[in-house]
Amino acid sequence: MSALEKLRARLAELVDLSAIARLAEWDQLVMMPSAGGPARARQAATLARLRHERSTADEIGSWLADLDGQPLEPLEADLVRIARRDWERARRVPAELAAELAQAGAEGQECWQRARAEDDFAAFAPALQRNVELARQQGECLAEEGQSPYEGLLGEFDYGLRESDLRRLFASLARELPPLVADAEQRSPRRPLAVGVAAQEAAVRGVLARLGVESESWRVDVSAHPFTTWMSPRDTRLTTRYRDGDVESLLSSLHEYGHGLYERQIDRRLARTNLGAGTSMSIHESQSKLWENHVARSGAFAHVLAEEMGAGGFAVEPSELHASLVGVERSLIRVSADPLTYPLHIILRFELELALIAGELEVPDLPAAWAEQMWALLGVEVTSDAVGCMQDVHWSAGAFGYFPSYALGCLIAAQLWERMSEEIGPLEEQLRHGELRLIQEWLGERVHRHGRRLDTLPLVESATGTSLDVEPFVRYVAPLAGR
Amino acid sequence: MSALEKLRARLAELVDLSAIARLAEWDQLVMMPSAGGPARARQAATLARLRHERSTADEIGSWLADLDGQPLEPLEADLVRIARRDWERARRVPAELAAELAQAGAEGQECWQRARAEDDFAAFAPALQRNVELARQQGECLAEEGQSPYEGLLGEFDYGLRESDLRRLFASLARELPPLVADAEQRSPRRPLAVGVAAQEAAVRGVLARLGVESESWRVDVSAHPFTTWMSPRDTRLTTRYRDGDVESLLSSLHEYGHGLYERQIDRRLARTNLGAGTSMSIHESQSKLWENHVARSGAFAHVLAEEMGAGGFAVEPSELHASLVGVERSLIRVSADPLTYPLHIILRFELELALIAGELEVPDLPAAWAEQMWALLGVEVTSDAVGCMQDVHWSAGAFGYFPSYALGCLIAAQLWERMSEEIGPLEEQLRHGELRLIQEWLGERVHRHGRRLDTLPLVESATGTSLDVEPFVRYVAPLAGR
Repeated sequence: MSALEKLRARLAELVDLSAIARLAEWDQLVMMPSAGGPARARQAATLARLRHERSTADEIGSWLADLDGQPLEPLEADLVRIARRDWERARRVPAELAAELAQAGAEGQECWQRARAEDDFAAFAPALQRNVELARQQGECLAEEGQSPYEGLLGEFDYGLRESDLRRLFASLARELPPLVADAEQRSPRRPLAVGVAAQEAAVRGVLARLGVESESWRVDVSAHPFTTWMSPRDTRLTTRYRDGDVESLLSSLHEYGHGLYERQIDRRLARTNLGAGTSMSIHESQSKLWENHVARSGAFAHVLAEEMGAGGFAVEPSELHASLVGVERSLIRVSADPLTYPLHIILRFELELALIAGELEVPDLPAAWAEQMWALLGVEVTSDAVGCMQDVHWSAGAFGYFPSYALGCLIAAQLWERMSEEIGPLEEQLRHGELRLIQEWLGERVHRHGRRLDTLPLVESATGTSLDVEPFVRYVAPLAGR
Repeated sequence: MSALEKLRARLAELVDLSAIARLAEWDQLVMMPSAGGPARARQAATLARLRHERSTADEIGSWLADLDGQPLEPLEADLVRIARRDWERARRVPAELAAELAQAGAEGQECWQRARAEDDFAAFAPALQRNVELARQQGECLAEEGQSPYEGLLGEFDYGLRESDLRRLFASLARELPPLVADAEQRSPRRPLAVGVAAQEAAVRGVLARLGVESESWRVDVSAHPFTTWMSPRDTRLTTRYRDGDVESLLSSLHEYGHGLYERQIDRRLARTNLGAGTSMSIHESQSKLWENHVARSGAFAHVLAEEMGAGGFAVEPSELHASLVGVERSLIRVSADPLTYPLHIILRFELELALIAGELEVPDLPAAWAEQMWALLGVEVTSDAVGCMQDVHWSAGAFGYFPSYALGCLIAAQLWERMSEEIGPLEEQLRHGELRLIQEWLGERVHRHGRRLDTLPLVESATGTSLDVEPFVRYVAPLAGR
């Protein structure tokens, strides 16, 4: 076998191992009897260790060295380029540190669950402290020439993004969004809609069916926290959840669909290579946010949602349903935030995690800093740490540098949507009739098919012709405030 | 780390990989969208290849050499003894032959499915021919000093069994059972019971709940072919199937429960070692057959089954239900055979596969040989190859030497049941009231806890005080013929 063939075989093996690891995780969250937990944790750790060994092995370096300077087809050149990057980055974190990170992350999550339930930040602080210190070390290992540790961490989720990009974008948002919030709370207030679970289930089933979700290559299940995963491009698994008197299930189903569609529409030639996956967290989130914000929350698509809900036995006017999906209300909780205030929740977290990793904020001072920022950005008073700095799992699991992708996803979704509308004309009529094929195809062509061949920023430029920018998102939310 | 620690760590890794492979298989058969099949096959192959590499690696040999002659605790001595045996056996089959076997088995199954659907033995014959040839080579690799290739294959399923043991046992059965069949068809004829699916589901749920099947550490799902698997001792997954107007679901649920209970009651000290699994196919089958034949098919337990069926809305007299579960009828199909004729179906297959591997029967002559044996043993005329020599998947997948375990399971179950009855007294009262704890505990103590520390024959002797024998089974079926 040539070096390229050997490399490809190893990459295919790693793809298979990752798919199996995702299966083990999906099963744990959706199917597994609870008593299976401890054994599953060991099984997942074994898989992760094997995957780490096989992805950082010396022989990969010698194959890459053999390939150095060889003339390659463009696709193969990308494959080798990304393989080299992944291999070098994975080897920068020593095995002992990787093991400590995994263990501290697992212990941190356990500690966080208990501490959050008892609203006891002091009980959580030591675990968080440990995670911050280990993440800083990890960031130092991963940081490339001229990068900060935080940028090293950021590269794990969104390669090529700089701290300065984020500071600039988030500063614009922090300037432009708050003035809209007060007006939006008046003009587009939150209006709960008392839909029962059965009607929600019918609507979710009906809408997903219109999007092409069929049982031959998709599963739709229920889990405590909605997520999407995939075992292959033709085995996509969405999960959602239903709560009585709530329409979140509609938004979350479309959100999860966006993640699923992305992985399904990657160029088949990239399958079982290192390129055959979504390129970054923020591009992935842009795909889910596009379906959540621009489809599910559009006035036009509310006709389709209302129709499906009616078929499920709950009669509602499209305008009333739409109002319940876009209502604005400043609140403490990120995951239930409206589309306008959502990015402000992220900016708060970005600034605090940046300060934690830089050593400019000490863990014991986190609750006060959180309360202060929450007041400054959202004008909301933090009533307890459980709904304040302990509301999210991420830091407890050691994930720093992840939060920005949630806000970037909103921005990129708006930018893609504007560009799509310019190119294929106003989309209202199609949304109104639930005809989404042109949207699916445009996304497939402009975003999905590239897999990991383009990183976040080049992909945004390639798809939209402009660089990453906040204005399309501001234009998307402005009507909520009557602007 | 000491050699023993290194060995233990590798064995734990292999246990984890096997559990994950079982998860992938369970998911494929129970949950996976059908379009996920091709990718899943590749993922399973990758796992199998890695597992093979890690279980046959040279370093295991050097750890074993270091351990040679070292004083060890009894449990550790067993662990090392079985590790050596597994490692040596796995290395006897060259990697190329292992790959050919896997591929021919997969292709053979595909070919068989098509050929069986069209009742076209000629279309299947080349694939079967290839499987026979490869199995013969595999058997030659595996055969130990003085063993035939067939015994080499047999050792994969039931280590330590000899061809001569099987010939002797099966000759007794072939002599003792046929005279009972004609009488049993008169005295205990097959009586279908037109139970709907809902009542079956209720009965299965109710009965399994009485056996301790709770949702914290078990799953019960539906699959096309009932099977049981486990991801750990506290994550057991049964599957069953329901057909309208049939009581097979009751039998198969209890059967599968027997497999599940075995793996759950293995000594906890053996968990994550090479000893923490059922010891052989025939002992495993004895556990399923014990619950199927001696519990589910007993007149006493029919009271419990009838009560649960009544709770599910289907009123039936225990005696009527019992009659439908034990009715005898000579037929062509193994999987739906009654308890008396079942072993005759196995004897037929044993004799033919023995002849195929020994080169004494050519594949093109198989249909005629099958028909002849079917007539001789069961007095049934074979109407087509689809319900004749193509009815089972095993040979198409390359599994030769597996069938005997089905009949041995029946024999061992009867032998264990007799011994248990002698030791803890007549079990009728307990069966009648669904109190099964003493049975579960006796099996745990005498059979389950040993894991792989005892092979089939020593385990039978240890559990029953006698060697493997047909008489208890003959005594179990004799009442069906009024003897």
